[in-house]
Amino acid sequence: MTVNVGLIGLGTVGTGVARVLLEKARLLEQRIGARVVLARVCDRHASRARALKLPAGRFTTDPTVILHDPDIHLVVELIGGIQPAKRLLLEAMQRGKHVVTANKALLAEDGPELFAAAERHGVDLYFEGSVGGGIPIIKAVREGLIANELNAILGIVNGTSNYILTQMQEKGLTFYEALQEARHHGYAERNPTLDVDGHDAAHKLAILTWLGFGTHVPIAKIHTEGIRRISQADIRYARDLGYCIKLLAIAKRVGPELEVRVHPTLLSTSHLLASVNGVYNAVYVHGDLVGAELFYGRGAGQNPAASSVLADIADVARNLALGIAKRVPSPHPHQRALRLRRMDDIATRYYMRFTVVDQPGVLGTIAGILGRHHISIASVQQKERQAARIAPVVMMTHEAREAHVQQALEAIDRMRMIRSKTVAIRTEAPRGR
Amino acid sequence: MTVNVGLIGLGTVGTGVARVLLEKARLLEQRIGARVVLARVCDRHASRARALKLPAGRFTTDPTVILHDPDIHLVVELIGGIQPAKRLLLEAMQRGKHVVTANKALLAEDGPELFAAAERHGVDLYFEGSVGGGIPIIKAVREGLIANELNAILGIVNGTSNYILTQMQEKGLTFYEALQEARHHGYAERNPTLDVDGHDAAHKLAILTWLGFGTHVPIAKIHTEGIRRISQADIRYARDLGYCIKLLAIAKRVGPELEVRVHPTLLSTSHLLASVNGVYNAVYVHGDLVGAELFYGRGAGQNPAASSVLADIADVARNLALGIAKRVPSPHPHQRALRLRRMDDIATRYYMRFTVVDQPGVLGTIAGILGRHHISIASVQQKERQAARIAPVVMMTHEAREAHVQQALEAIDRMRMIRSKTVAIRTEAPRGR
Repeated sequence: MTVNVGLIGLGTVGTGVARVLLEKARLLEQRIGARVVLARVCDRHASRARALKLPAGRFTTDPTVILHDPDIHLVVELIGGIQPAKRLLLEAMQRGKHVVTANKALLAEDGPELFAAAERHGVDLYFEGSVGGGIPIIKAVREGLIANELNAILGIVNGTSNYILTQMQEKGLTFYEALQEARHHGYAERNPTLDVDGHDAAHKLAILTWLGFGTHVPIAKIHTEGIRRISQADIRYARDLGYCIKLLAIAKRVGPELEVRVHPTLLSTSHLLASVNGVYNAVYVHGDLVGAELFYGRGAGQNPAASSVLADIADVARNLALGIAKRVPSPHPHQRALRLRRMDDIATRYYMRFTVVDQPGVLGTIAGILGRHHISIASVQQKERQAARIAPVVMMTHEAREAHVQQALEAIDRMRMIRSKTVAIRTEAPRGR
Repeated sequence: MTVNVGLIGLGTVGTGVARVLLEKARLLEQRIGARVVLARVCDRHASRARALKLPAGRFTTDPTVILHDPDIHLVVELIGGIQPAKRLLLEAMQRGKHVVTANKALLAEDGPELFAAAERHGVDLYFEGSVGGGIPIIKAVREGLIANELNAILGIVNGTSNYILTQMQEKGLTFYEALQEARHHGYAERNPTLDVDGHDAAHKLAILTWLGFGTHVPIAKIHTEGIRRISQADIRYARDLGYCIKLLAIAKRVGPELEVRVHPTLLSTSHLLASVNGVYNAVYVHGDLVGAELFYGRGAGQNPAASSVLADIADVARNLALGIAKRVPSPHPHQRALRLRRMDDIATRYYMRFTVVDQPGVLGTIAGILGRHHISIASVQQKERQAARIAPVVMMTHEAREAHVQQALEAIDRMRMIRSKTVAIRTEAPRGR
């Protein structure tokens, strides 16, 4: 059988997918057991198609040409963003075409609507490229770990942020210096908001949470903090304490509740995720049968992402060759619904950095306020003075409730002896390695 | 649809699979989209079935009852070993039943015959449980990375050996002390040969090599060395040089040739695989599109292995529910056959430990012999004397050919100033992280 693919979007990933489909056609046919042909390609820019040396007549700037072509079996959407991607995918499915997408923002926002459409029209919707670049994490969670009830998914899923934090850690750069480095190497967009403010990680977390826990959490309900406020001092003090700082996407079951959050996190340097550096991604999964697993690889880049999109194309092509669809229920329902835990109710250990006027009694006052908010101190260090009479105080707490911490810090930051807003960073303890 | 499973073998993994099928029936049905019923169970020991509290009439001590039952769709073989497992699997397939197995020895030895039978009879043969315990590595290589041409697969795939080496490293134990520890914790069999002599790792490597490179390498052609000869001194000296020692299963493409070997290996402590400790397994895969990936998890144990077998059962059940089979060609052919590289032709850096009489000129003589065999020295250290006039000399070489190294060591070990057989351990350099 010949499977005709219509590819919409010749950006970085789209160009990679097109190139592999053209160059590895024979290898793919052998492995898949069906011939996959890049039948039509659409992009706004004709120049991008010319660079690919597509056979004549296959390129269009009008996506409806692909949607209306009855010979196209499978539409691959790689333009990203909500619209027109959503409209195109919905119309493709309505016309009975299977779809593959790597559009994490769209899946996170409108996943339920898209999957309902796939269900209604009896077509496949695959999305391996949406999380973790070249790591086959969607397939692992959805198929490989199918017999597990998951306890936790922790991910370093934004390569840009991880690159920046690694540069800060290894070279002593400030956030802005490291951001410049990332831009210089093409790892950061001109507008880095989506990456460094945690939104991209939140999109991916929404998808992983849905797959892993059967719960669709709207993006607006995912507590999301980025890495802009991480200072070189925090990186250094954390290291002195045996930790590194990572932007972590966290989904975990706590009793009948589910915690879903994205924020900078202190990880013990012995944690599996602590050695994931640079633009690499990794997803840590804890399942009731398998225990701890880690999936590690390049989180971005043309070829890794293309590898994932091509795995999806192969899956759909195999289904088409066998005359089936909807082989893998997606996302599979969970046996019991989990309630989203309020951010106020989470409990972790906290790293706190206070900037205090160095005078007698300061520490006692801070400790007193923390104590009244049920927060107990695990360790405290006064660091060398930064300026006359101003010194940082670094503290690790025992496990404390988020609400208590926020209330305590509000009270502390109102004091005159506190000279800048206190920094508080949550920690994540290793579990059942 | 209801899928009737006949399970043969209630050992550790079989009992785990049976338990999950009984306890998670509803969850599995929801996720798979088909009902999976443990219809018949076979073991030599009726006591094992009683512990499971199977519904009446489902247990038999005679495997032919399962093979002859026309209602059984899928036979799960978990008895291990070559016979009678092979005979049972072949007969099951001949009778049109799909099969799932975790039998690495059998697949490594007789894989071609088994897959040919599956082809001939149009049935599925799945085997996720054969490598890497709970890590879905077979699916990742076969499906997730389908568009990649692989450059290398490096695995820590024997939990027992890795546990022993980790104990030696962390607690300063000798090999035999660490082996006792492993036995004490149930991580080693009474006869540990299969594990500590590298044979189990070689079986798994044969399977990974076949999947990843399309080349079936008979076990007898895989150069296999175990960890019995690793001494505490080597662990310590390697650490001083910035390395740890792991039993590595290695398959890598070098030009038109394929290197396939299992042996203790020095890994730089910054290598991804260096932090895989205890009974954990990990498989490092380097593909042309994805670059370096790592899959990490528990390599053995009842529940992790059961998780993999259940993922296979789910795959077959989905196929059955859709009326298809042979969805994933297995193992998929590679686009070009790779020639197996002769062990003599491999080239790595070597760690060497000489036990010499501490007298003037010894080092010069050794260096001279190495030089005549085209081996150049990267670093050398004479360690503290162990006994009167006897001292260890530890050397790291630059890349050298195996044949040259063996010839040089033979010449060196014939010298009177060498007091015991020289230890040589190959290294593996990090590649394209």
